[in-house]
Amino acid sequence: MFVILYYDVNKKRVSKMLKTCRKYLTWVQNSVFEGEISISNLERLKIELENIIKDEDSVVIYTFKQMFYSKREVLGKDKKEETKFI
Amino acid sequence: MFVILYYDVNKKRVSKMLKTCRKYLTWVQNSVFEGEISISNLERLKIELENIIKDEDSVVIYTFKQMFYSKREVLGKDKKEETKFI
Repeated sequence: MFVILYYDVNKKRVSKMLKTCRKYLTWVQNSVFEGEISISNLERLKIELENIIKDEDSVVIYTFKQMFYSKREVLGKDKKEETKFI
Repeated sequence: MFVILYYDVNKKRVSKMLKTCRKYLTWVQNSVFEGEISISNLERLKIELENIIKDEDSVVIYTFKQMFYSKREVLGKDKKEETKFI
């Protein structure tokens, strides 16, 4: 299953969110992650994120059973690629 | 067609990007937009964004012909809703 995840959280929690999401998904830019993930890992990730965030924070998770009807296009630089070589 | 769009641009260009994307899509959080859009409007939006961004900037556009295989989930607050009442 493919996932696009983005969050908008209080500055104090950003690094914890980044570290947690990076265990499961690929950082794309700012507070946006993408990637293939199993259902069980997605459940694990959600539990970990729920333990971090407070009511004021927001995490949006789009899950796609298949990406057949979709297209990914980039204007300018694709920062996602860069993260593969870190 | 449904679109998820996010950008990572130099601070100097953020407000112009925000203003341009807001004409076509709904602001969700940070530099993320979502929404239904026609093919012609998406082409217009892309041209306008290409006139704004520089090489160092990045805009990722996911287009979905249909969202049948997808799910949108929110942990915490759904900031997208707030924008409807502005």
